[in-house]
Amino acid sequence: MTKNKATNITWHQSSLSKSKREQLLRQKGVVIWFTGLSGSGKSTLADAVEEELYGRGHLCYVLDGDNIRHGLNKNLGFSPEDREENIRRIGEVSKLFADAGLLTMTAFISPYRKDRDLARQLLKDGEFIEVFMTVPLEVAEQRDPKGLYKKARAGEIKEFTGISAPYEEPTNPELTIDTSELDLEQSRDRVIQYLEQQGILKNNSQ
Amino acid sequence: MTKNKATNITWHQSSLSKSKREQLLRQKGVVIWFTGLSGSGKSTLADAVEEELYGRGHLCYVLDGDNIRHGLNKNLGFSPEDREENIRRIGEVSKLFADAGLLTMTAFISPYRKDRDLARQLLKDGEFIEVFMTVPLEVAEQRDPKGLYKKARAGEIKEFTGISAPYEEPTNPELTIDTSELDLEQSRDRVIQYLEQQGILKNNSQ
Repeated sequence: MTKNKATNITWHQSSLSKSKREQLLRQKGVVIWFTGLSGSGKSTLADAVEEELYGRGHLCYVLDGDNIRHGLNKNLGFSPEDREENIRRIGEVSKLFADAGLLTMTAFISPYRKDRDLARQLLKDGEFIEVFMTVPLEVAEQRDPKGLYKKARAGEIKEFTGISAPYEEPTNPELTIDTSELDLEQSRDRVIQYLEQQGILKNNSQ
Repeated sequence: MTKNKATNITWHQSSLSKSKREQLLRQKGVVIWFTGLSGSGKSTLADAVEEELYGRGHLCYVLDGDNIRHGLNKNLGFSPEDREENIRRIGEVSKLFADAGLLTMTAFISPYRKDRDLARQLLKDGEFIEVFMTVPLEVAEQRDPKGLYKKARAGEIKEFTGISAPYEEPTNPELTIDTSELDLEQSRDRVIQYLEQQGILKNNSQ
């Protein structure tokens, strides 16, 4: 558990509310949290969603497992505690981005239900959209875009999710997408359709 | 120093570039880093800048010393190492916000030159704008909006910047603002004028 060490702090109420920024951007600030095995298509799908929404005039940002590790979380490894802190920080940052009004996408394996639920609890109802990228392990392993499964099988990577570390499936995700059944375009449209149905995208014509 | 613990990581190139998002927002993504003593007016000025720019159709976001401590950095205290990690994380997060295209403002005491310079080095030339809020200690202490100086003088707060911990003034800030001489409106206009001169704000008319 994370202890709150800071004292002598008063909450600073920003003069501009989230809803004002949402008005400017004609969208709601939310977190779309992709979770699934390495190779399940999280980053690819997030990028495709961003590209399509950009074309419609919406502002997205993708927080990605591979690039946030070079910056904010570069002092974290892959031990259970470090994985927990990794997801905790990402949850807090994605909350800030949603507060800024962005359609914020996170593409991390995030294998533990508890950690994902902590991220969910940072946000209001409807602001956290969990997207479970379900794919048979064999398919993910066959794709192996970064050669990580091969290394994990050879014992060169310890605690690799799906091989030597657990993946806990979401019990009640907002969306489940199987990229071994849907192609990229279909997957993308399913996410965007959900955002439309939830009233997250406002009419962008002026 | 922060060690890079993560291995087996490939850089994920987002399909959408920063410049695309800047085009959508008609502004450049930058970090405006306010630094100065408690009570020097950092948050107040950042909020005033945000409000004015919002009125012109620009998207800003203020990362604030008082509210980020409740979330991302709630597991950090005020020891020298924790202060360093505090500013390091804020630097990394502000870099992400600038990459997302936002006019990102940070309002932290950030007393150490080394820490601020690390934040600056995360960004490209011209993307980091250091604003030194200079104010005589007596004035800041007289304002004491949160009653912190009083507590520090009474010994109830250890390592309080300006009283029992050092503040290292910027040697070459992009802007210096003395809020004991300029009023809020004048201070705000000085920041906005700088942004205009640097070509950071694009014409927002359609």
